Amino acid sequence: MAVYTEVNDDELQRFIAGYGVGELLSYKGIAEGVENTNYLIHTTEGPFILTLYEKRVAHGDLPFFLGLMEHLVAASVRCPLPVRDQNGKILGEISGRACALITFIEGFWVRRPTAEHCFEVGRALARLHIAGTGFELKRRNALGLHGWRPLFEKFKSEASEIVPGLAAIVESELSVLEPQWPTDLPQGVIHADLFPDNVFFLGTRLSGLIDFYFACNDSLAYDVAICLNAWCFEADYSFNVTKSRALLKGYTEIRPLQPAELAAMPLLARGAALRFLLTRAYDWLNTPKDALVKPHDPVAYLRRLRFHQSARGVRDYGHEVTP
Amino acid sequence: MAVYTEVNDDELQRFIAGYGVGELLSYKGIAEGVENTNYLIHTTEGPFILTLYEKRVAHGDLPFFLGLMEHLVAASVRCPLPVRDQNGKILGEISGRACALITFIEGFWVRRPTAEHCFEVGRALARLHIAGTGFELKRRNALGLHGWRPLFEKFKSEASEIVPGLAAIVESELSVLEPQWPTDLPQGVIHADLFPDNVFFLGTRLSGLIDFYFACNDSLAYDVAICLNAWCFEADYSFNVTKSRALLKGYTEIRPLQPAELAAMPLLARGAALRFLLTRAYDWLNTPKDALVKPHDPVAYLRRLRFHQSARGVRDYGHEVTP
Repeated sequence: MAVYTEVNDDELQRFIAGYGVGELLSYKGIAEGVENTNYLIHTTEGPFILTLYEKRVAHGDLPFFLGLMEHLVAASVRCPLPVRDQNGKILGEISGRACALITFIEGFWVRRPTAEHCFEVGRALARLHIAGTGFELKRRNALGLHGWRPLFEKFKSEASEIVPGLAAIVESELSVLEPQWPTDLPQGVIHADLFPDNVFFLGTRLSGLIDFYFACNDSLAYDVAICLNAWCFEADYSFNVTKSRALLKGYTEIRPLQPAELAAMPLLARGAALRFLLTRAYDWLNTPKDALVKPHDPVAYLRRLRFHQSARGVRDYGHEVTP
Repeated sequence: MAVYTEVNDDELQRFIAGYGVGELLSYKGIAEGVENTNYLIHTTEGPFILTLYEKRVAHGDLPFFLGLMEHLVAASVRCPLPVRDQNGKILGEISGRACALITFIEGFWVRRPTAEHCFEVGRALARLHIAGTGFELKRRNALGLHGWRPLFEKFKSEASEIVPGLAAIVESELSVLEPQWPTDLPQGVIHADLFPDNVFFLGTRLSGLIDFYFACNDSLAYDVAICLNAWCFEADYSFNVTKSRALLKGYTEIRPLQPAELAAMPLLARGAALRFLLTRAYDWLNTPKDALVKPHDPVAYLRRLRFHQSARGVRDYGHEVTP
């Protein structure tokens, strides 16, 4: 939530003139995005977002992220469209940063999602998975199973500063997940970070999905498991099965889950909880105290992990298994 | 430049519904304003700014600031208009903060102002001064002459951490200004902080003045002196007399300066430089290292002060004195 790079008015006017989207009327740095700088721009043709990619983002991945958004919009998924400049380029440069001008999505993220919102998220996720088929670029999931142990090794010795015994818990969980992790589930493009703040609503209508900067190729059902973690726990860490039932119902209405995907769901949900536990724990220990962006509390994911460890099957997520 | 207070979507929807400005479409925390939290809001009727007044702002002054903006818009000054809610109230409350919904001004501040911009600023300032006549509320200038010494006393003992000898320079300047400071110049409502980032342009057309949260009653010519400091120095601290000539020309076209105001200009400019030197020096020494908003360098105003000390009269600011 920070503006890392300032943009000069003259440079921005020249930049906007290269896109054929009218004249610049105003621009405001907005407090969104952890890794990048974002400006909300008004031109005579409407609002846009200008994203400046800061150094932490791997620039080699930008054609994947931007190309994916363009592919998804063409397949009628509601998400921001990167605007091509008058030379057909999707990636620009301003203030010494790679950048993209993307369409603005009206709507806002829901602080207290209901089961109805979860149902809509399930549907949108399934539509995204289907629409992702045929996108020609590939991106490996750097935060998938093979990334977890190396990330853990980086902070293992300090893990007890967060919660006593955390290293042993993670070690034990990795030893369960590594041999059992399913590799033969249907694959495709996953969002991989579809948290409430990345889904905009207008009332109960889902107006758009944003922030594709973790998107990659992986098991589609793993993306569902991420959403179960992201949408179905309450502030007191209790699991809301009405919400997960709605999310799975929405998803399977559009894309039915195969028996192998359903059977793997508790394990996938454990993996998803571990993935966010690991990145949050790492950020918690490695974010300078004076950073503009405060790290999230990793403990929320330890609590989620415990729930998934106790789940006996997809029924515990409210899914009605029809024979 | 920070979002200090988060706003909940449900609460904001209910809040906006009370204003008769259509339905909420989106809201983004923007990186503007040092003291307050600002959201750029889109409704079905257009864009607005929602300002949440944080605790540092003296709430007793809000009716003055908001009433002034309303008064100025009624007098055709281009500035944001606080929207009254359906009960006629100008001041609301959200997320436990006093707040106001104000109209959005398209335009952006000019990083490298030209003499043409300075001319327009001079005209707008004079129009503001004339329009301020008849505004019934009063607000003392807490950062006027009588506020300088008490502020200086707060950091005098640490002043040398900024520049060796700074305390002696300020002491000597106060001893010159205090006995000579003019008290009989034309009085009125002044903006008191009309820096480039508070003036929006679209091309060379001035689209609006913003941020009236330092406005108060004082000598009108002192406001001109603040603008000479704010607009007419280059990044290398050199004084650009072409810009000051343009600013004074623009101002006097709309509101001629009286002989006493012209004669006092070098002294007023010294006072204005000292005022910003003092507040910046205080902030420099008292802002926590991990603050979201970084303090401005006070030295820029020490350099400005030296220029004004050497000025012999308003001619040195490019004003053509006609007999």
